[in-house]
Amino acid sequence: MADLGSVDALIDALRRLPGVGAKSASRMAFHLLQHDRPGAQLLSQALHRASTSVRHCARCHTFTEAEICPVCSDPERDATRLCVVETPADQAALERTGAYRGLYFVLMGRLSPLDGIGPKDIGLQQLFDRAADGITEEVILATNFTAEGEATAHVVSEGLKTRGLRTTRLSRGVPVGSELEYVDLGTIAHALADRR
Amino acid sequence: MADLGSVDALIDALRRLPGVGAKSASRMAFHLLQHDRPGAQLLSQALHRASTSVRHCARCHTFTEAEICPVCSDPERDATRLCVVETPADQAALERTGAYRGLYFVLMGRLSPLDGIGPKDIGLQQLFDRAADGITEEVILATNFTAEGEATAHVVSEGLKTRGLRTTRLSRGVPVGSELEYVDLGTIAHALADRR
Ligand SMILES: [Zn+2]
Ligand SMILES: [Zn+2]
Repeated sequence: MADLGSVDALIDALRRLPGVGAKSASRMAFHLLQHDRPGAQLLSQALHRASTSVRHCARCHTFTEAEICPVCSDPERDATRLCVVETPADQAALERTGAYRGLYFVLMGRLSPLDGIGPKDIGLQQLFDRAADGITEEVILATNFTAEGEATAHVVSEGLKTRGLRTTRLSRGVPVGSELEYVDLGTIAHALADRR
Repeated sequence: MADLGSVDALIDALRRLPGVGAKSASRMAFHLLQHDRPGAQLLSQALHRASTSVRHCARCHTFTEAEICPVCSDPERDATRLCVVETPADQAALERTGAYRGLYFVLMGRLSPLDGIGPKDIGLQQLFDRAADGITEEVILATNFTAEGEATAHVVSEGLKTRGLRTTRLSRGVPVGSELEYVDLGTIAHALADRR
């Protein structure tokens, strides 16, 4: 075996990425070292910069390099609406629609007792405090439509109800542009139940 | 959208990894920043170190931090045998068997006209020069048993034959421990043809 000291160290480090096993890590290391050293340097720098400069917005918990993120500090946003999402990627998806101009609270996860993720890990108390600012009129629950996302939405909804706050949930239904024939039955059933 | 400057930069950099699309990159960045900053720092350092210190062995082309890799400089290896493999991972697999004590030539790829990978890219001339050192008696072709690996083995074999060098190929056959019922037909056919 060659003295693959720093190659092996790279493969080990790549394995810490979610969804990357021994074979993928080995393939990634080979690709970077054989075909894309500038990419390796770029990734090295991006990791260093992000892991040292990114923190959480004090108001909405999303990733930011400032104390308060630009969305939370934007006076043009509608502060009477607060949208609860699981991750920055979900927030980004909502922003891309251009259909929402309110504020956010990013849980940075979802309740998952099996993985040991409880109310504290997703900052539920901070969310309740945040929503009780006297300005928020509606909390829109935009957690994922998975078992864990639904359970999280339920817990958030109950917690806010006892504080006298109104919550709404994104509607479930048939995706725009899809043919009924190819939509799963659960979705069709929900679209029927939630019909308007 | 938040000022995800360095988060977005990280996601972009992660997308340069082979097999990583927008969604995986986003999930990886989230995981590292939310749950594993030490892992992000470790990967940053491993990438920097490997991409600046790893080069290719002057004799066998594998990754190494020295001019000549430890395998090539080991006087205990059998210098009359030279095994040709596609990648350091293939070499590592052979080493793990403990069944081979000769030397290697690592192509760092395989011929692939469709991807624009020709003889120069895998150092065929260097391999021919290396094998013609007057010490090598047998060149073992251990490229993969894929269409490209077989084609590469064929080209190497023809090139060495004209130089009067003997080549052998790893045998094809039924994997040890497998039940015939579950082995694909091509493998069984080859195992029949190569029976001894
Ligand atoms: Zn914010
Ligand atoms: Zn070597």
